[in-house]
Amino acid sequence: MSSSRNGHPNAKLAPKAVVGRVSLYLRQLETLQLQGLDKISSRQLGEPFGIKNAQVRKDLAFFGQFGHPGIGYHVDALISVLREILGVDKDWPLALVGLGNLGRALLKYRGFRSRRFHIVAIFDNDPRKIGQEFGGMIVEPIEALRKSIASHKTSLALLCVPAESAQQVADLMVAGGIRGILNFAPAPLSVPSHVNVAAVDLSIQLENLAYKVQKTQEGVSYGG
Amino acid sequence: MSSSRNGHPNAKLAPKAVVGRVSLYLRQLETLQLQGLDKISSRQLGEPFGIKNAQVRKDLAFFGQFGHPGIGYHVDALISVLREILGVDKDWPLALVGLGNLGRALLKYRGFRSRRFHIVAIFDNDPRKIGQEFGGMIVEPIEALRKSIASHKTSLALLCVPAESAQQVADLMVAGGIRGILNFAPAPLSVPSHVNVAAVDLSIQLENLAYKVQKTQEGVSYGG
Repeated sequence: MSSSRNGHPNAKLAPKAVVGRVSLYLRQLETLQLQGLDKISSRQLGEPFGIKNAQVRKDLAFFGQFGHPGIGYHVDALISVLREILGVDKDWPLALVGLGNLGRALLKYRGFRSRRFHIVAIFDNDPRKIGQEFGGMIVEPIEALRKSIASHKTSLALLCVPAESAQQVADLMVAGGIRGILNFAPAPLSVPSHVNVAAVDLSIQLENLAYKVQKTQEGVSYGG
Repeated sequence: MSSSRNGHPNAKLAPKAVVGRVSLYLRQLETLQLQGLDKISSRQLGEPFGIKNAQVRKDLAFFGQFGHPGIGYHVDALISVLREILGVDKDWPLALVGLGNLGRALLKYRGFRSRRFHIVAIFDNDPRKIGQEFGGMIVEPIEALRKSIASHKTSLALLCVPAESAQQVADLMVAGGIRGILNFAPAPLSVPSHVNVAAVDLSIQLENLAYKVQKTQEGVSYGG
């Protein structure tokens, strides 16, 4: 346990929604640090995301006691401890499988690097792509995945292959020792319980928006 | 109200998590319809996503009474009613702003078209891109956005510009009449309350995975 962390670090796995919001607080803290602030209130932490201060306090309390009554939070200290909690105080090598449009977009996605996620190896099954250079790396055949995961000690992978080959590639990832898969393929994956999958299904997010837009156009008020 | 819908359609806006799961049930129903099934249980609906049957029943009950005791759900009827509820029983034109790597990947993303989301106009501020053809459309300058939204009756937009111009483009979208924005820029947006924003921050999803992988590597069990 970090000496900078007070109170009762929670041994339980935090719910996804809490971790997601803590990621947002961390971004806001980093923005304010750049602006030179050294203290911050829970209201300021949640405001840009429309999150109420009571929710901010509750979310942070899941991990420990960080605030000081009448003072707020120390920006630098809270950044350090939240980075440590989220695991982004160290580098995470990533394997990327599938160099279609989305895979190539992810290769250049600046948001990963700024959070210490680094794509270290890229794979495809297209003979025209294997051996080519993308983003400073040579595309390897899918068959090389297992060995590469071991040599780079890769825990996380980006799955950007078509739906029909997603499960097969996920199986290879799991066999190689991958512990977390960010799945861009529009297909559910079956993995052992020690492996975590986060699905990025963009059409689901659009459906959610379409539902809200349709509902508000029908003149139904929020919160009913 | 649809004559095919029984019971008590809920006038309230369903929580995002419920709508997200209903989108998943709809996908599973469509898969099973292709396989020729005509009836399905709540267990079968949730199983591929690890969702318990009690949760499936509770989610669907938010919108009405669709199941039949001892029989389950009629696949065709439930597909129709869920499509209507989600608003995906009709076409949704989309505006796409920002033709970087991600924008171009979205242009080819098959998952949108299969859900009746169609990109109808594309915009960029790069003079080298304006006037060029991408995906069968001519890139228009950002200044043309407002007029284009009105002429295509576009309610939904994909925002794929860098963080520093995201708010400015969002303002133009809102001024043009956009009601829902899928935001890929790593920046929070400030919009009026009648406009919905869904943020796609891929590094947040990776942080969530990293957190879980780190937690499980520490040997802490799920559910504590």
